[in-house]
Amino acid sequence: MGWDVPETFLFDPEPLVRATALELYNQTKALGLICPHGHVAPGLLAEPNARFLHPTDLLIRFDHYIFRLLHSQGIALESLGVGVPEGEYDPLGAWEIFCQHFHLFDGTPTGLWLRLELIQLFGVNEKPSARNAADLYAQIQAALDTPAFTPRALFKKFRVEVLATTDAPEEDISLHFKAQRDGYRVIPTFRPDGLLQVLRPDWKERLSRFETVSNRSIETYTDLLEALKVRRQEFKKAGAAATDHSAANVRIEPLPEAGAEQLFALALKGKINPEQAEQLEAHALFDQARLSAEEDGLVMQLHLGVTRNHNRHLFERLGGDMGADIPHAVDWTRGLQPLLSEFGNPSQGRGLSLVLFTLDESTYSRELAPIAGHYPGVRLGAPWWYFDSVLGMERYLDAVSETATLYNTAGFNDDTRAFASIPARHEVWRRVVANWLARKVHREIFDLEEASRLLRLCSYDLAAKAYGLEIKSRLIADSG
Amino acid sequence: MGWDVPETFLFDPEPLVRATALELYNQTKALGLICPHGHVAPGLLAEPNARFLHPTDLLIRFDHYIFRLLHSQGIALESLGVGVPEGEYDPLGAWEIFCQHFHLFDGTPTGLWLRLELIQLFGVNEKPSARNAADLYAQIQAALDTPAFTPRALFKKFRVEVLATTDAPEEDISLHFKAQRDGYRVIPTFRPDGLLQVLRPDWKERLSRFETVSNRSIETYTDLLEALKVRRQEFKKAGAAATDHSAANVRIEPLPEAGAEQLFALALKGKINPEQAEQLEAHALFDQARLSAEEDGLVMQLHLGVTRNHNRHLFERLGGDMGADIPHAVDWTRGLQPLLSEFGNPSQGRGLSLVLFTLDESTYSRELAPIAGHYPGVRLGAPWWYFDSVLGMERYLDAVSETATLYNTAGFNDDTRAFASIPARHEVWRRVVANWLARKVHREIFDLEEASRLLRLCSYDLAAKAYGLEIKSRLIADSG
Amino acid sequence: MGWDVPETFLFDPEPLVRATALELYNQTKALGLICPHGHVAPGLLAEPNARFLHPTDLLIRFDHYIFRLLHSQGIALESLGVGVPEGEYDPLGAWEIFCQHFHLFDGTPTGLWLRLELIQLFGVNEKPSARNAADLYAQIQAALDTPAFTPRALFKKFRVEVLATTDAPEEDISLHFKAQRDGYRVIPTFRPDGLLQVLRPDWKERLSRFETVSNRSIETYTDLLEALKVRRQEFKKAGAAATDHSAANVRIEPLPEAGAEQLFALALKGKINPEQAEQLEAHALFDQARLSAEEDGLVMQLHLGVTRNHNRHLFERLGGDMGADIPHAVDWTRGLQPLLSEFGNPSQGRGLSLVLFTLDESTYSRELAPIAGHYPGVRLGAPWWYFDSVLGMERYLDAVSETATLYNTAGFNDDTRAFASIPARHEVWRRVVANWLARKVHREIFDLEEASRLLRLCSYDLAAKAYGLEIKSRLIADSG
Repeated sequence: MGWDVPETFLFDPEPLVRATALELYNQTKALGLICPHGHVAPGLLAEPNARFLHPTDLLIRFDHYIFRLLHSQGIALESLGVGVPEGEYDPLGAWEIFCQHFHLFDGTPTGLWLRLELIQLFGVNEKPSARNAADLYAQIQAALDTPAFTPRALFKKFRVEVLATTDAPEEDISLHFKAQRDGYRVIPTFRPDGLLQVLRPDWKERLSRFETVSNRSIETYTDLLEALKVRRQEFKKAGAAATDHSAANVRIEPLPEAGAEQLFALALKGKINPEQAEQLEAHALFDQARLSAEEDGLVMQLHLGVTRNHNRHLFERLGGDMGADIPHAVDWTRGLQPLLSEFGNPSQGRGLSLVLFTLDESTYSRELAPIAGHYPGVRLGAPWWYFDSVLGMERYLDAVSETATLYNTAGFNDDTRAFASIPARHEVWRRVVANWLARKVHREIFDLEEASRLLRLCSYDLAAKAYGLEIKSRLIADSG
Repeated sequence: MGWDVPETFLFDPEPLVRATALELYNQTKALGLICPHGHVAPGLLAEPNARFLHPTDLLIRFDHYIFRLLHSQGIALESLGVGVPEGEYDPLGAWEIFCQHFHLFDGTPTGLWLRLELIQLFGVNEKPSARNAADLYAQIQAALDTPAFTPRALFKKFRVEVLATTDAPEEDISLHFKAQRDGYRVIPTFRPDGLLQVLRPDWKERLSRFETVSNRSIETYTDLLEALKVRRQEFKKAGAAATDHSAANVRIEPLPEAGAEQLFALALKGKINPEQAEQLEAHALFDQARLSAEEDGLVMQLHLGVTRNHNRHLFERLGGDMGADIPHAVDWTRGLQPLLSEFGNPSQGRGLSLVLFTLDESTYSRELAPIAGHYPGVRLGAPWWYFDSVLGMERYLDAVSETATLYNTAGFNDDTRAFASIPARHEVWRRVVANWLARKVHREIFDLEEASRLLRLCSYDLAAKAYGLEIKSRLIADSG
Repeated sequence: MGWDVPETFLFDPEPLVRATALELYNQTKALGLICPHGHVAPGLLAEPNARFLHPTDLLIRFDHYIFRLLHSQGIALESLGVGVPEGEYDPLGAWEIFCQHFHLFDGTPTGLWLRLELIQLFGVNEKPSARNAADLYAQIQAALDTPAFTPRALFKKFRVEVLATTDAPEEDISLHFKAQRDGYRVIPTFRPDGLLQVLRPDWKERLSRFETVSNRSIETYTDLLEALKVRRQEFKKAGAAATDHSAANVRIEPLPEAGAEQLFALALKGKINPEQAEQLEAHALFDQARLSAEEDGLVMQLHLGVTRNHNRHLFERLGGDMGADIPHAVDWTRGLQPLLSEFGNPSQGRGLSLVLFTLDESTYSRELAPIAGHYPGVRLGAPWWYFDSVLGMERYLDAVSETATLYNTAGFNDDTRAFASIPARHEVWRRVVANWLARKVHREIFDLEEASRLLRLCSYDLAAKAYGLEIKSRLIADSG
């Protein structure tokens, strides 16, 4: 018992709710997947012969959701192949450690995704454990070696309609064109963090690469802004629908006249302090918002409120993305006021489309739902990262639906670098929303038709609408 | 299906819970409505012939709950008659836009209130839509034109026992006497914000009107305080039970000797800065608390933690109350310490009665429930504004009941300017509390007698007790 | 109805969930009680003839959970015997007031514990009220007068396997040895707050007592640190497993070279200001962490984020522990970064074990679960104080289980000075966890075996593991 995916997976036990949830959920099965935000490497889809190397490569080494939890229970990251070059660790040994501790994932979103993925994609019919680890490794390896398991084959099997990646301005976007030419709609997302956060150790190196890509020298903030403006257009031509920005702080406001140039000059000289760097970043984000609102219409995504690389010791040893990014409290209300007062009121067809993601759940009902329930250009992003979970989603739906309404959300995105987990993530979301709606149907808050419409919107249409993506299915019209 | 109000409306689907919730809820049907805090215009009840103009006037133009949501989906406020004088917009056209987008309110508290109001009060038997908009307009208009739909007739029909309005000290309160003389218990609430927030654009104008009403000149802070003290007595004679205060910040503490006079002098000269204005406001609120505790016993209501008029662009175009007030985090614990240490310990029959309202839900369990569970004079206000919703209420009950107990709450108030929605709001509250209690009855936390007693308290008695209102029904005695 | 403890007490009404919850809960009945954190007076177990004086002494006078709530409803603390010497109040009169207001505890955790304790321990078969108060007093008094109700007899009856008390370094720990020699495993916990918070009124007095106990003079911070280091070893020899620290602020970081000595010198002269005192405390806590990580391996417990003695007026009249400690918001993420970066990465068998307790629930999902889900040495403490309640526990389980997993929690502790309530507190926790797991079993998130394993861990093993306690039962092995 337990190691299966019954049709009522994740639904409430109450019989009426369960039946309605199933009825609703089944309506989503015909829908493809809209993936407007994620971290899949575009090369996977650009190259016809790209392959997943082995089970450890596919599932463990690059997935900080998985290895951070093993680490928290005292398992050395290096033994899992994390931060170690291929060939210098034992993939099967890493896999065995993972299987031996598989029970740690019980009840976690990662555990649910793994269950769906292993059963539905690889046909694994028992829960991983120390006992069966080697057999499972062989079974999955055998699958990966077949043509049915290339990324491109899976893209079709998963019915992905559009997949957005995340790309720095200084990165090559020709891979996206390559994938698109062969019929795989893989689009870039413009993420300039590395150029706007001037205290990052690799800032100068990135700036230099961006000069090369832009074919111009960048000596002033104005140069940088101009080059970014041009590069955004190139991303747009490559299909980009959005920009994406991560920052620790939410205060986004312009510096006084000439302030940005002065701070940029200090940054180039290596003489800027952390407070100034944050002011410059805030100014630059304000300018990026202006470009979205007035120039190219790219949707602006803000992922704010994380202390990156919290574990300094580990960061020095192994670098970033080690599962040590820890959220902190944020003040969206006052932090976004300058931006929203300036660009939040569309006129003459111009205006900012803003999608907001938080890791501070206390802001959903206190700040984000009221903001999205007022400003025309604001949509709330799906429950992000630590909250991309059954209970996280339910808290999100509870917190935003009454004040912002689901209509002012941006639907779902899987936000993953684990390509093979994409269908599992969408399935969990759709099941959770179906069940949440079913509960409310039986409290007489929605009728079945309203619930059906909202589920369709949450599963498919809202994501497409929020990012302005043209997609295959006809979207639900605005009027009821 | 859906467009009706079944007797089990809002109850859990679990059959035992549902049956108990219904049994409990039915016990509240005999109770009238206590409305100790709201924003109905007193003129509606003062004039025997006051009328609601038309459906758009009744439901849309003045209800920022409704038009902010339409605005968030891109509908121009002016097209709804918001901020436009009567005669310069098309009431039926506005109504049609509203009906066309009625689905946006699905699952929102506004949507639930509208459903109850339209069905129970106006007999509307299908959900509003583009198709039926004109017919519904005609149907409601026909009702409004009959004597059964005057505000006074509705006051009786709704069985309102007492209705508190919200009134500035400089406003006329003779309307309340007029209503009272004819048997409608409409009482004022003393709300001096406009006189204590010296940076408001209309501060001087309000001060000048207050001088006229007070028949004295106000040249110092002491003058102002003295005039307020006298005016509070006049409000009390007009039946007032409470004062009400809104402020962005929670820090309420007195300035050092002479500090208030100095800042008031700066304010009169137009030379006060925002920080000083906040200090002066805090000092003035401390003095208002002192008057409650030591002079007149008026219950002090604090509604704190909102950034008013967040959308500056819109504020400049259309003014305040546009659905753009956005909550922010507050610190009740440290902010109220001076006030509670001074006035929170009643002695010799004197002491402060304080009712606290928050829009920062994270403070319910962290700060407000512990405060109300200790200080004798503190009662927690009902879930306010964005949280006057099914799930908001449930979170409130969950968060405060174990630490503060429901006995330390102030029951319910509808806090509305939409007079005709009052019964709907009370019905939703009573149903939600009944259902919440029923769940706990079936977890053996309460027995049925305890649940019945608590529901009655939450529906009726606690509000009357918290505001010291004498009412028709005998209140439940303190002992069990 | 109501005044009983049915076998399904606290379980959901849904029949499937209820049956599974009962099946799970029954598995915990064979387990003894692990009590790694509490405030029972060690003298109760050290003296074979120690007794509880009378019902008021047992249940009311020393339990601020109880008297704060009565106080909040206007009952004078002195009438309950609070802050009054034995002989100067009327114990039966106090008891009668308590029984008369017993309904105030309906639905509170205190009310549930009292119900369990009165029924299961004393055989009380009706709910306390004004009517039966005197009879109940006599009935409980009669029980307390028998040998079956000495603390030692109850210790065995309750099947307590280990009971940790909380003890200042300057206090005598010979009582613990005395209890242990007679077979009662009562161990001290090292709590040096009174020596590290130099602005407490009794700091000098405590320091002087500590000099006596340490048999050395303490003239510098280095002296103090050295004496604490030695004293920790003595506590360890007395069986201590942990230290415990309470502080208002979470920022824990060392001062620059010589800074601590300078501030300590100021403190001795009575010239330190509050900000400096907080810096010195933070430095001292950092040093205590170092001792845990590098010297003695004592588990470090942090209970942070409370404004102690919020009601200054009451504090001046009656002193501390009056139910007037009010939580405030905290910033664990940035506050613990220096400490965790330094000691959070164990190597060569060394490393800090940290158990974190919060009263700011918004930090569970935002900060604490991500921290515990990454750092190997961090475990999350049970829902503390105001959150040691049915709904508080459920919110805790919901908030931490998906990101941190239950494996990274420290199980349960009862944290009480009310010795006779210990079994009731564990029973409530076990029932709530069983029910919470049962809900998830029927959503197919856990299977029954996983749920059974997790319940056992939460009820018993995790507490023993987190504090490194050797106990009677074999612990569940790490692998699944």
